[in-house]
Amino acid sequence: MPYYIGDVIHDQNRLIARTPEKFREGGIDVLLQTRVLGVDPAGGVVELQDGRKVPYDVMVMATGTSAVVPDMPGIDLPGVVSLRNLEDAIRIKTWLREKNAKRVVIVGGGFIGLEMSEALAAAGIQTTIIHKDPLPANRWDAALSKMMLEELQVNGVEFAANAAALTIEKGGKALLTVTTDQGEYEGDLVLLAIGVRPDASLAKAAGLKIGPSGAIAVNFAQQTSLANVYAAGDCCESFHRVSRRWVNIPLGDIANKQGRVAGRNIGGKPLTFDGIVGAQSFRLFNLECAATGLSEKEALAAGFSPVSNITWGSAMAPALGMKKIGLKLIADRSSGKLLGAQAVGQAGAVGRINALSVALWTGLDLDQIGYLDLAYAPPFSAAWDIIHNAAQALGRSL
Amino acid sequence: MPYYIGDVIHDQNRLIARTPEKFREGGIDVLLQTRVLGVDPAGGVVELQDGRKVPYDVMVMATGTSAVVPDMPGIDLPGVVSLRNLEDAIRIKTWLREKNAKRVVIVGGGFIGLEMSEALAAAGIQTTIIHKDPLPANRWDAALSKMMLEELQVNGVEFAANAAALTIEKGGKALLTVTTDQGEYEGDLVLLAIGVRPDASLAKAAGLKIGPSGAIAVNFAQQTSLANVYAAGDCCESFHRVSRRWVNIPLGDIANKQGRVAGRNIGGKPLTFDGIVGAQSFRLFNLECAATGLSEKEALAAGFSPVSNITWGSAMAPALGMKKIGLKLIADRSSGKLLGAQAVGQAGAVGRINALSVALWTGLDLDQIGYLDLAYAPPFSAAWDIIHNAAQALGRSL
Repeated sequence: MPYYIGDVIHDQNRLIARTPEKFREGGIDVLLQTRVLGVDPAGGVVELQDGRKVPYDVMVMATGTSAVVPDMPGIDLPGVVSLRNLEDAIRIKTWLREKNAKRVVIVGGGFIGLEMSEALAAAGIQTTIIHKDPLPANRWDAALSKMMLEELQVNGVEFAANAAALTIEKGGKALLTVTTDQGEYEGDLVLLAIGVRPDASLAKAAGLKIGPSGAIAVNFAQQTSLANVYAAGDCCESFHRVSRRWVNIPLGDIANKQGRVAGRNIGGKPLTFDGIVGAQSFRLFNLECAATGLSEKEALAAGFSPVSNITWGSAMAPALGMKKIGLKLIADRSSGKLLGAQAVGQAGAVGRINALSVALWTGLDLDQIGYLDLAYAPPFSAAWDIIHNAAQALGRSL
Repeated sequence: MPYYIGDVIHDQNRLIARTPEKFREGGIDVLLQTRVLGVDPAGGVVELQDGRKVPYDVMVMATGTSAVVPDMPGIDLPGVVSLRNLEDAIRIKTWLREKNAKRVVIVGGGFIGLEMSEALAAAGIQTTIIHKDPLPANRWDAALSKMMLEELQVNGVEFAANAAALTIEKGGKALLTVTTDQGEYEGDLVLLAIGVRPDASLAKAAGLKIGPSGAIAVNFAQQTSLANVYAAGDCCESFHRVSRRWVNIPLGDIANKQGRVAGRNIGGKPLTFDGIVGAQSFRLFNLECAATGLSEKEALAAGFSPVSNITWGSAMAPALGMKKIGLKLIADRSSGKLLGAQAVGQAGAVGRINALSVALWTGLDLDQIGYLDLAYAPPFSAAWDIIHNAAQALGRSL
């Protein structure tokens, strides 16, 4: 009998209550709020904290990530939270409502922090983002991150740059005060969004191979170093088709694909997960922010000789109006192959990054990308799309 | 000395007046409103209608298309127009303004007719589209064209289906009356938008090879059958990377690319134009309509065994809202390779068709498309994008 063991079951439609029953109707026993103490691969047994032992023939590790929590006084105060799963989200919403929260401090200006600032602004809550660097979303080029910073400011989100949070204390005008090396910021809730790391502790204790990323090592069938133990989702690695290394990029779409591939293989319909190219996106108020492939730093680490450019333009034909978009391309000097792309724009950024993700998937070079056949119409691009202009300009610089 | 011979010079920014001077400043003589009577390739001379002879070492044919004008009584009446170039557009705008036009009849429900109906509605003009088939935009699947029809109706555009225009006469409540086999339709202007054909008459008379499409045959360098005569734009053929045939698809982005390739080769920096995949799009009020690759009919003609499906979904995660989108995929039964795609949606159709255009460019199959790494975020897609769902479903049906 298959088991599902975990803290909580959720899906996008929030069917928390109904879903366990659905699983059970399908013959799957669901043990909620059940901690696993350890795994004994030799005996084929999962040991639960309450002493029960659950035998298995095949196991799937889907332990996800843990939020990185800084070592800082006040981190355990009520109202200091991180965001990892739906339970956290419900806890945050409940707190905001019960405390009639007016202001929130977010520690961390990565894309989770940015997305949260948008959600809080929509709820009428004044938000401050405390970030260690001068600009948000470090993975993006500074010129593109600057566009994000302006979008935050236009929408009334305070951005405390180059600030390190030192302590969190009760009180002030709001419920909590965060003291940084740049001053104090008050909020009725403090959200820690400084990153996540793969939760591979159970796998490690069970003797499974852990990759250099710190996540569980898997093969193309999602098998771990033990043939009857699979792993899927944020806790494990993926093959990056551009760097040709195994990496850990914790994103929901990758997790879904890995889960389906693991299930297919366990169920006897073999399928390989052929990897990722690092495509990701988020919305920030009226901006689309998207990236794919390698950053210059990652390209250097992988042994490429990266060259890059940034092209500014409009996501529609200039005669029809202006939807500002910036596109950064990163390519390899010796082969001319595209290595990565980043786009931020009032429209069309995600669509362009998706087209370039397919180009990365298949290893296209700048010459080909400069003349790709794209679906031109004036509301959506100029006759030469910004993709063409950027690729040709970077190609000429090689 | 290089020459440019033509009816009118224009670019997207409408610099009609300034552009000839710019050309002349660059040492290019521009002869406007100058008809070419014929070309003598043996003598290397272009003969103008006024008797002048212009010698050349290298010539570029860029004669574009001619609007198809039906053989119908009344076609020459003032206010009966077709739309081919900027001069036509200016003539139409002037007529509408001078006649204080209240209603327009468009003959033809292809994408030019549809785009015009949107432009006219934006100008507050009541529009009727007369179309020979039950649904607009025949190239798209009926289910997708039905979505376009509903969008027309919601926006007050009348669509006369299965109607053949028979005569155009003066008078009625408006300036002109179009009589069809389904009834009469009145308008202060009648726009003929039943298609275009490549204007290859000059090339044909000069003895250049004409392809089976009726357009000027060229090679990958945009050379015609005469090595010192190039052709670019709507008047010539392009290599279709999916059907592997030479076709004529008159679109502005293709014309731009061919022009640049021809120029590079003439200028001594060789470049090939590696072809097209048939990507195209238009906006219809609040809908994005886009297509790429082959239709089922075209796939059959090219010798494939097409299978297809239509997938309906949302261009954003269901938890965030609904932006209806329909995606049709066409694939080859024997190889599983994608052959074409069509999408119509309230958002995200063009971006998805562009991603699939890159997939067509490189010949991806449904198994790969079903697991492509795309830039997921809830405002832009579900964790499984409609591309993944559609490709996996069609793949299972093979």
